[in-house]
Amino acid sequence: MGSDVSLKELIQRALDEDIGSGDLTTTAVLTGGETGVAQAVSKADIIVAGIDVFREVFYVLDPSLAFEAYSTDGRAAGKGDLLACISGSLKNILLAERVALNFFQRMCGIATITNRYVEEVQGTGVRILDTRKTTPTLRGLEKYAVKVGGGTNHRFGLYDGVMIKDNHISAAGSISNAVRKVTGSIPPEIKIEVETKNLREVAEALAAKADIIMLDNMGQGEMKEAVSLIGGKALVEASGNVTLSNVREIAKTGVDFISVGALTHSAPAADISLVFENKK
Amino acid sequence: MGSDVSLKELIQRALDEDIGSGDLTTTAVLTGGETGVAQAVSKADIIVAGIDVFREVFYVLDPSLAFEAYSTDGRAAGKGDLLACISGSLKNILLAERVALNFFQRMCGIATITNRYVEEVQGTGVRILDTRKTTPTLRGLEKYAVKVGGGTNHRFGLYDGVMIKDNHISAAGSISNAVRKVTGSIPPEIKIEVETKNLREVAEALAAKADIIMLDNMGQGEMKEAVSLIGGKALVEASGNVTLSNVREIAKTGVDFISVGALTHSAPAADISLVFENKK
Amino acid sequence: MGSDVSLKELIQRALDEDIGSGDLTTTAVLTGGETGVAQAVSKADIIVAGIDVFREVFYVLDPSLAFEAYSTDGRAAGKGDLLACISGSLKNILLAERVALNFFQRMCGIATITNRYVEEVQGTGVRILDTRKTTPTLRGLEKYAVKVGGGTNHRFGLYDGVMIKDNHISAAGSISNAVRKVTGSIPPEIKIEVETKNLREVAEALAAKADIIMLDNMGQGEMKEAVSLIGGKALVEASGNVTLSNVREIAKTGVDFISVGALTHSAPAADISLVFENKK
Amino acid sequence: MGSDVSLKELIQRALDEDIGSGDLTTTAVLTGGETGVAQAVSKADIIVAGIDVFREVFYVLDPSLAFEAYSTDGRAAGKGDLLACISGSLKNILLAERVALNFFQRMCGIATITNRYVEEVQGTGVRILDTRKTTPTLRGLEKYAVKVGGGTNHRFGLYDGVMIKDNHISAAGSISNAVRKVTGSIPPEIKIEVETKNLREVAEALAAKADIIMLDNMGQGEMKEAVSLIGGKALVEASGNVTLSNVREIAKTGVDFISVGALTHSAPAADISLVFENKK
Amino acid sequence: MGSDVSLKELIQRALDEDIGSGDLTTTAVLTGGETGVAQAVSKADIIVAGIDVFREVFYVLDPSLAFEAYSTDGRAAGKGDLLACISGSLKNILLAERVALNFFQRMCGIATITNRYVEEVQGTGVRILDTRKTTPTLRGLEKYAVKVGGGTNHRFGLYDGVMIKDNHISAAGSISNAVRKVTGSIPPEIKIEVETKNLREVAEALAAKADIIMLDNMGQGEMKEAVSLIGGKALVEASGNVTLSNVREIAKTGVDFISVGALTHSAPAADISLVFENKK
Amino acid sequence: MGSDVSLKELIQRALDEDIGSGDLTTTAVLTGGETGVAQAVSKADIIVAGIDVFREVFYVLDPSLAFEAYSTDGRAAGKGDLLACISGSLKNILLAERVALNFFQRMCGIATITNRYVEEVQGTGVRILDTRKTTPTLRGLEKYAVKVGGGTNHRFGLYDGVMIKDNHISAAGSISNAVRKVTGSIPPEIKIEVETKNLREVAEALAAKADIIMLDNMGQGEMKEAVSLIGGKALVEASGNVTLSNVREIAKTGVDFISVGALTHSAPAADISLVFENKK
Repeated sequence: MGSDVSLKELIQRALDEDIGSGDLTTTAVLTGGETGVAQAVSKADIIVAGIDVFREVFYVLDPSLAFEAYSTDGRAAGKGDLLACISGSLKNILLAERVALNFFQRMCGIATITNRYVEEVQGTGVRILDTRKTTPTLRGLEKYAVKVGGGTNHRFGLYDGVMIKDNHISAAGSISNAVRKVTGSIPPEIKIEVETKNLREVAEALAAKADIIMLDNMGQGEMKEAVSLIGGKALVEASGNVTLSNVREIAKTGVDFISVGALTHSAPAADISLVFENKK
Repeated sequence: MGSDVSLKELIQRALDEDIGSGDLTTTAVLTGGETGVAQAVSKADIIVAGIDVFREVFYVLDPSLAFEAYSTDGRAAGKGDLLACISGSLKNILLAERVALNFFQRMCGIATITNRYVEEVQGTGVRILDTRKTTPTLRGLEKYAVKVGGGTNHRFGLYDGVMIKDNHISAAGSISNAVRKVTGSIPPEIKIEVETKNLREVAEALAAKADIIMLDNMGQGEMKEAVSLIGGKALVEASGNVTLSNVREIAKTGVDFISVGALTHSAPAADISLVFENKK
Repeated sequence: MGSDVSLKELIQRALDEDIGSGDLTTTAVLTGGETGVAQAVSKADIIVAGIDVFREVFYVLDPSLAFEAYSTDGRAAGKGDLLACISGSLKNILLAERVALNFFQRMCGIATITNRYVEEVQGTGVRILDTRKTTPTLRGLEKYAVKVGGGTNHRFGLYDGVMIKDNHISAAGSISNAVRKVTGSIPPEIKIEVETKNLREVAEALAAKADIIMLDNMGQGEMKEAVSLIGGKALVEASGNVTLSNVREIAKTGVDFISVGALTHSAPAADISLVFENKK
Repeated sequence: MGSDVSLKELIQRALDEDIGSGDLTTTAVLTGGETGVAQAVSKADIIVAGIDVFREVFYVLDPSLAFEAYSTDGRAAGKGDLLACISGSLKNILLAERVALNFFQRMCGIATITNRYVEEVQGTGVRILDTRKTTPTLRGLEKYAVKVGGGTNHRFGLYDGVMIKDNHISAAGSISNAVRKVTGSIPPEIKIEVETKNLREVAEALAAKADIIMLDNMGQGEMKEAVSLIGGKALVEASGNVTLSNVREIAKTGVDFISVGALTHSAPAADISLVFENKK
Repeated sequence: MGSDVSLKELIQRALDEDIGSGDLTTTAVLTGGETGVAQAVSKADIIVAGIDVFREVFYVLDPSLAFEAYSTDGRAAGKGDLLACISGSLKNILLAERVALNFFQRMCGIATITNRYVEEVQGTGVRILDTRKTTPTLRGLEKYAVKVGGGTNHRFGLYDGVMIKDNHISAAGSISNAVRKVTGSIPPEIKIEVETKNLREVAEALAAKADIIMLDNMGQGEMKEAVSLIGGKALVEASGNVTLSNVREIAKTGVDFISVGALTHSAPAADISLVFENKK
Repeated sequence: MGSDVSLKELIQRALDEDIGSGDLTTTAVLTGGETGVAQAVSKADIIVAGIDVFREVFYVLDPSLAFEAYSTDGRAAGKGDLLACISGSLKNILLAERVALNFFQRMCGIATITNRYVEEVQGTGVRILDTRKTTPTLRGLEKYAVKVGGGTNHRFGLYDGVMIKDNHISAAGSISNAVRKVTGSIPPEIKIEVETKNLREVAEALAAKADIIMLDNMGQGEMKEAVSLIGGKALVEASGNVTLSNVREIAKTGVDFISVGALTHSAPAADISLVFENKK
């Protein structure tokens, strides 16, 4: 999830966004001396992800709050399951509550949907990849949640992987030109992926010794042909219009990876609530 | 959407996240002198929101890029509709593309789902409210998109509205105590909302002269009774388990507002692509 | 006072401003191992405000410094009264001293002058409001000090209250047009205030159902007429040219609130010193 | 005033503080297309300071606003004098108005009070110094305003001047020890000032070859003796309990400098308004 | 060099560091209206790198300064060669001068020393790699300068390449265990490098199918054996104790890459001056 | 070294630069529960500087790491000497290792080279000064290392010292004009230095009562004459083309200070390694 320092800064900004010039209600009603106990409870079937981030929000707001986790990242939870318990200054639990849940529900949501895709392709050996279609400035957290859900991370950004697309090919003149230029420029530890739209481009990418070949928006028949053509000489990624309904069919074409933008750009938030213990 | 300055900082952070130490592919293949033209095209029925943010991403990356908008916030667009056209340095369009779309698709997604809720309650006079269940640090953009989609913003944070809940009430001893404490503490321009769970609490809130009464997770029958009990002496907000299927029924109970967390925490991204013009 | 995080950042900036590349004198003369004890002493009649901020400056500079408070926010102190005692690394007390006092003296100064206005109107039921005429970037601290001094906060910024002025009215065509536009746009928990310059405008604002009517720079006779005209159907705020000499007269006109810019823009610093204990 | 970059950041923070999640009133009422013309008018006798800062606030908010200055820093202005004229987007003038005035009124206020002290000592050759008793994070602007008002800046912080005080002397064992330690540690371009409380300390500081000797809270008789004792071998600064009433008397003791904390910590804001031109 | 935005922030911080509360000399002596022309002249044989960064410092300080480049990155320059010419406000050229040179001289210094290593291995096909031994927070600029000097960048940080070392191997139990764990965890586009200290480890790394094998501090005889053992099945990097005197001998062992920490951690600054044109 | 706060921010940025989206290798291989012990060992003759900064990097990354220092700033160390020992989470030691060494090796490198210059002039009474030719944004650390190595700091920036050069003189008309203008503008605690190129300028600077006279790029004969001409009425600094070979000769000319840019712009990194204890 990147460094803890930048996570704390992100949390600070999120808390500032919500608290602004102060919590009018709590400041007026509470003395500040009240203590409380709140339980984070799942209200649906989910995969837990981000419990450390959840805890960190409370901790950034008030390091003296006690946080006990009852689950860990990657574990499944069902309706009514207790995920964590926070106790300490009631005022500060209330101040952090919404922001903490906003982070946690998003991360659990992503892990949950990822896990459904991973379950769908079980047994095929195919790995589910995420994309760069993430929420601006939250990519580290979202890609971590994908991994927790059983997915595999694709490159994090433009800087840690090469993806040669249309525009690069036409600027370079040909796929082989583009691959050659990239090879001479990048650090030796980075592989080269080429995006292809048809079998002719697949053949070119193969000839240019691409490490990974992406099949973009191809039909399943065409994908099978591509996989056969490539014959294990490069890794193969399927991409485009992947849904829970068709992902298993695509997996059966023999590709190594299937990338799914919806893991991060359209995952619904997991349903989790904070329940405060009754004071007697 | 807050100040332009903080929007620019957010965009910078998002670009830094994606570009990091540099775009390996583009740096290697392009000379930097190539120019390109890219069209943003809708691939589904959407409500446009955030076209200025979309433009700003390109502008922050390279102020010399030309951006022409073919739609405006609040307008509907269908499959194949041209939304905007960007031209200039091909390298810089490619550098900004993904981040720009990530912002724009999210905002259009929120406006689109909001609009569906608003359409559902058409004619009832009820207004659809958003919540604080937003993406951390993107609240301003998301609430703006809700408004573009026809919704009404609820308070932005803990600082610009009062919401008296369970914990406040038990700390203060009673609803009327809580309301009295708040009244003496807050700026005169802020109204007081009280969250209620049953008709007894509604009656108490009414007696305490709450400006707004929230009916939390009540059944429709109970809501109708609450509305009748309140009799116009306070504004009424329904909250909890609202879906596109039941929102109209809830609206018919006579409440003034219905708040929907899913507008922001679970809106799927709108499907929008950048299509590059063929070079001859 | 907003979030603790942003307070710490503000204090850091202030310490950086004063310490810069290092304290030439202390670095040269002290070994760093000396300890010291310093007492914060009031040198005049003041209302204490910001003792937590005062403590925080020492703490941000060196969390191991011990700070004992002998007063609390809102308490009066006279000449020679001990307010707090700081002990620990002499070097670090000296490094934080000036910045800590600069914050504390300003906040006590504001609470002290506010309290004098509040005392003046005692018994009238009128509340003293602050304004947005605060020191740039210190508004949260200054408004907190106003509250400590017995005043009431007006809106914190442009975002948490509506104030319809001349320019808005002329842009909208009329007061009632402006109020209608605002009502349809703002969150339901925000009230609407209209600034008026004469009785005709008061009548219009009343007809438009403004929640609060501001009487701007009116004479006391006119204010009385306005209060009578409004007849309790809106809250009433007096504004403009308020001094300690005339505030009680204005209060007697029957308005609910009197706003005073001088509370924050012209409060003299409270006279407070740090006295170091003699070493034997 | 330090670098323009940090000034812009300060202004941004101040604008963010005031605008927050958006100007509710202006967003609701104005279309954004209206233009306006506003005149900054002095309402009292002042010395102008910070007109570039005043302009910069408008410019940071909207670089397309036109700003015409009718005065310059250091010039006197009287009631009704036009200081500047801003024209362009009415919405943006309104958004920047309060923050711009908050900066400008403070700076003019400081220059104005400084100038009164400078006028008082006219003809004596004495120079009026400021102190480190400035508003946290605004020191650069405030010291600039002192200079505009005819004052002389003392050191900006702990880093650009040496001031040996009580605590340093007792830690070093004696004034001469302290001076010797400092001399061996600091950059060669920095002078050494010693704070003294009586003639014995003055004599010691003189013997230790201090460059500047501060007479702290001495009576005027003692100051005269000190000046005579020093006999031009060091510069002399008077400090403590300086007011407009006694500053001339102090000046006559023969000191070179008189430092006045009130220049920055208690200067009342200058009275300046923004007057919008009537639209016909 | 990463994004322009973060470069600008870095430059701002550097300018703030140098200018602080203001340039005492220039502010006192210049009116601000003087113009000047300054030429950047090389005073030794160098490879130019960072001329855009050099220009950007002037531009960040004052966008109205004119900057004309007479060389480009990667070009050689000799004593007396004109590299660039800056004209405009004399005050602002003086304010930016030192910071601009500090960046430029460092980058040219790195490109120059890199180029000497590259020249040494000419004809061998070996590529010279940099390391992570860079100046904190300047890595992007320094690695860019390496590339300009003819070197090849190694991974930028811990995030865009895998390097399995001693500690990883002992934690995993064996090289093959470590490689297997990494393969299942990282994005598919990242290659795996293993650091080896002897031929036994080389054989293990080869068996584990490492993509790159680093020979750490081996003698040249051992390196030759390792290269022969690997037989083209992995890329080979030599590392440790590389100097200009032995780099060619190391290259002849048949390795693919030689990494040199001194390129960035010990490159002497290139000798470049700013010469101001005489005013007549 | 400036404030601890800004040091921590610098370290954070450096860690972010290296760790980015996460350490691929360590995350994959280690469980996070392993502990380790690492020893920082000198591999050459050095002067230690920055051991607190070295420790702080580990502490910023993980406050629970234990750090034991076996040397202190200013002490000499030889090949094989143990400087410090770090123990705790193996993962976090590995994450911080490179950044911590990058800071420490640079600071020790500067102290080491400074010390060689200081040793060269031993007995002459001359002091070695640094310059503003430092690494952008690391000036505080580098100047601290110079002091640790026995050198004396020159002004930190443009703000805490006056240096009148060619351009200032020609703008002011003459050296005496320039000095007079500066005297009237700067804080009283700042001395004035004038840069001179020949004896005529030395005479002018002397007549203008400059506090310090810099002899820029003069030959040793000319320097002797200058020193004799000045006759103790101002401090004298030699500058330009100083090397370890000629610094003693220059010192013998009788100047008070010799400034050396190479102390900071060209100091090679000290050779220091982290050695991990063998696990049994």
